[in-house]
Amino acid sequence: MGRLETAERWIKVVSPEIVPPSLKDNTGDADRFSRSVEKALGENPVFVGLPLIRKLPSLLRACGYRVSALLYKGSRSWHVMDIWPASASPPIYGVAVDLGTTTVVARLIDLESGETRGETSFINPQTEIGLDILTRIHHADQEGGLAALQGRLVQKLNQAIEGLTAGEGVEAASVVAASVAGNTTMTHLFLGVDPHWICREPYIPAVNRVPILKASEVGLRIRRDAPILVFPNAGSYFGGDLIAGILVSGMAEREEISILVDVGTNAEIVLGNKDWLMACAGAAGPALEGGVAGIGMTAGPGAIDKVSRNPSTGEFQIRTIDGRPPIGICGSGLIDLVAQLYLAGMIDVQGKYVGEKCGSRLREVEGLTSYVLVEEEKTATGKALVLSQPDIDALLRSKAAMYTILTTLSRMANVSLGDFKDFFIGGTFGAYIDPQSAITIGMVPDLPRETYKPLGNTSLAGATKTLLSARARERICGIRDQVTYVELNVNQDFMNLFSAARFIPHTDRSLFPSVRSQG
Amino acid sequence: MGRLETAERWIKVVSPEIVPPSLKDNTGDADRFSRSVEKALGENPVFVGLPLIRKLPSLLRACGYRVSALLYKGSRSWHVMDIWPASASPPIYGVAVDLGTTTVVARLIDLESGETRGETSFINPQTEIGLDILTRIHHADQEGGLAALQGRLVQKLNQAIEGLTAGEGVEAASVVAASVAGNTTMTHLFLGVDPHWICREPYIPAVNRVPILKASEVGLRIRRDAPILVFPNAGSYFGGDLIAGILVSGMAEREEISILVDVGTNAEIVLGNKDWLMACAGAAGPALEGGVAGIGMTAGPGAIDKVSRNPSTGEFQIRTIDGRPPIGICGSGLIDLVAQLYLAGMIDVQGKYVGEKCGSRLREVEGLTSYVLVEEEKTATGKALVLSQPDIDALLRSKAAMYTILTTLSRMANVSLGDFKDFFIGGTFGAYIDPQSAITIGMVPDLPRETYKPLGNTSLAGATKTLLSARARERICGIRDQVTYVELNVNQDFMNLFSAARFIPHTDRSLFPSVRSQG
Repeated sequence: MGRLETAERWIKVVSPEIVPPSLKDNTGDADRFSRSVEKALGENPVFVGLPLIRKLPSLLRACGYRVSALLYKGSRSWHVMDIWPASASPPIYGVAVDLGTTTVVARLIDLESGETRGETSFINPQTEIGLDILTRIHHADQEGGLAALQGRLVQKLNQAIEGLTAGEGVEAASVVAASVAGNTTMTHLFLGVDPHWICREPYIPAVNRVPILKASEVGLRIRRDAPILVFPNAGSYFGGDLIAGILVSGMAEREEISILVDVGTNAEIVLGNKDWLMACAGAAGPALEGGVAGIGMTAGPGAIDKVSRNPSTGEFQIRTIDGRPPIGICGSGLIDLVAQLYLAGMIDVQGKYVGEKCGSRLREVEGLTSYVLVEEEKTATGKALVLSQPDIDALLRSKAAMYTILTTLSRMANVSLGDFKDFFIGGTFGAYIDPQSAITIGMVPDLPRETYKPLGNTSLAGATKTLLSARARERICGIRDQVTYVELNVNQDFMNLFSAARFIPHTDRSLFPSVRSQG
Repeated sequence: MGRLETAERWIKVVSPEIVPPSLKDNTGDADRFSRSVEKALGENPVFVGLPLIRKLPSLLRACGYRVSALLYKGSRSWHVMDIWPASASPPIYGVAVDLGTTTVVARLIDLESGETRGETSFINPQTEIGLDILTRIHHADQEGGLAALQGRLVQKLNQAIEGLTAGEGVEAASVVAASVAGNTTMTHLFLGVDPHWICREPYIPAVNRVPILKASEVGLRIRRDAPILVFPNAGSYFGGDLIAGILVSGMAEREEISILVDVGTNAEIVLGNKDWLMACAGAAGPALEGGVAGIGMTAGPGAIDKVSRNPSTGEFQIRTIDGRPPIGICGSGLIDLVAQLYLAGMIDVQGKYVGEKCGSRLREVEGLTSYVLVEEEKTATGKALVLSQPDIDALLRSKAAMYTILTTLSRMANVSLGDFKDFFIGGTFGAYIDPQSAITIGMVPDLPRETYKPLGNTSLAGATKTLLSARARERICGIRDQVTYVELNVNQDFMNLFSAARFIPHTDRSLFPSVRSQG
């Protein structure tokens, strides 16, 4: 039936050529079958389990030895999952999952063509138990806590998959494989493995490299024996989501040195090339995600994700994610806004409001000096959207932390911040950031704009890639082994760098030659 | 605790040295553990499944990283079955099973010392459905037939194992592995795999090489995930029982050529050395097992298993298996008896009774010329034990078939019957045969007596050996691949040989120089 057989696949359907038995060749059915599959694959060994051995003799004879086999590659061998007449041609799907702390995304993929057939996302139901990782780790210590965390997540995921397959008009059992990428704690919670020691010195995950599992082991209601690939982690603070980022960036396959930054509550940074990878994580503070400012919110409907300023009128222009009246501002909008305020001279190098430049929009709101970005009649909430002085201070601490971590790691690797071939920005949030604004406030180095490459949802992209490619699947273990995780030493040197980086863009203006304020 | 760690074992307990984690080495628990086990084994990879990953973090910390692991070797890697504190030291057992068509034998083995801890046998409950293989194959075609055949056998086997473990004062779950050897059909029935095509041209087993299974897959009530090793077969008429015989004989490890004969309804013969093995099977007839003669019976309580003759008095002396009054005669006794009758001149080269030599014990019984071996007052049944002329004729046809098959196979291999280093006799029944008697009637070649080596229950011995040795486990697949099964062509040449072999010992007396009759 001319099924597409891609050499890279580790889940595939093959239609082996089986020479029927004779008195001259009385090899057993299962042996004959697996030998034919080995020949078709050009690889061995191929294992056939007892349930299929039981089914094989009558099936082979019923369809004149013309059968197709659904296979997956284990760690050292191929396994036959199912066998059907070659005339049948059931579709086979895989699910790629981005196991986010806040949002989970599932993508349905046709495993033969490699095409995406649907995508859906939902708020991780574990947020009802605890918004942050730490609360969830503590909840897992309670009686039944771990089971509840795992159960809620998997139940929601099953519903999501059910919805995706229904959209294709197929059963969830048509999903024959899954690939899951998340941070270390999320991975543990997905597996129902106690994350207790992750947050306790010396910060030990229960598992780094997860073996290929079966769907039934984690409660996924897809094909019972579907192989589940779970991204490995390099440590408690360097999870499968970052391994996915490295994979998707391609930085570990190249001679040139690149950097990958995942911006979030934690700034996670990887530096290196095909020979070495150095990684660290540090608290950058929730301000970068828009999680702190009074008007801050995570990227979503009604969030201001972009702010620009008409140089002639001096008016701020805002864009919301869905074009509707704004509810709040997300991280990328906040960075834009502070950058514009600085460029207009409305805040100074310390981030303090300059009264005479701000005009009537600078007011006292609830006892705090605040700039009114959107008047109350133009918001969705009927409340004005204002940016207070403490909001700016928080953002500047966060951006300073980020820049300091970048500087520190580069120094440890003995690489100049200007030497990067590419500056990859991972994560969904990272995709919205305007590199120009980030440079302006001194959050990232003053590199040519084209150096900055937003990668979008790398967990989802990585999970998709590994689902379709045996080489990618192998690479994530190779990448994992290659990563050297360094603990940031918050010493006097670090604090000095941090203090200097709290200014806009920096105390050392020569580091940001392209940034010019009108102040 | 100084557990015996034998390098050859493929099921073993190791107590790895685990360096506790630190800030300098924050490898995950499961990874740390499996790496330590790999080091202790000197082999890799070692896989830890999800249930144990879940258990590991608290267990490791509860016992200061001093744990023991129960492992088995799969086809390409080691698998951890269980983990416990190193201070605990639960016994681990294996069960070796001879899956006989008529009798099943189970042996309980201490997997650490290698010692046998108990043995039990029972009549295969499938005999209630059909005494012979063919009846069972046909029964398997009926609705529910295969399940009934499998279910009865496994149920009885579970009871036997239950009894063996109870005798040791342990649970059946202490049995962590099993090895099973039987003929091809018995193996299929044990696995619940349809044997339908075994007896139909071109005689194809459903499976030759059975993967390592889990106990739960075949319904064995030992440790649920205990690995079950099932002997492979080389074809429909060359099963795991014979592979076990070859393994136990050691013939496939040597330079010299040996022969292995399994005497039964079918005579199964293997010829060869470390470089080649030629095998064939042919119907020798049930006479050799004592299954045909009016007084014949299989070896068991009350069976005459040995017959000798006092040369001075001319009296026959009999021995029964348990020393009690006789019920009948088994194959070895029958061969002895006919040999003695011939040596005494009481039957001629054609096997016909010589009236003048037999005296008053030669009588007409139920219309047949018969020799009274035991008078009615000395038997357990109150009926005289008599050997009729047709009984002798049947035995001679069987022995002629055996000798002809031996001759034919040797000719095909271009080996002289005198070239054998060893003449192994496999099977429980073979252990009783007196080689001298077998030579006398011309059933086997006239070789020095010490050439004949009875091996006893080779299926049980082979199953035991493979349970304790990874090398033996590998060897059975090597042996399987090495066997060339040849179909005996019953042509004119074969029939000529057969006719000549129906005489005692043979028409060509020069083949049996040591046999001298008083006739």
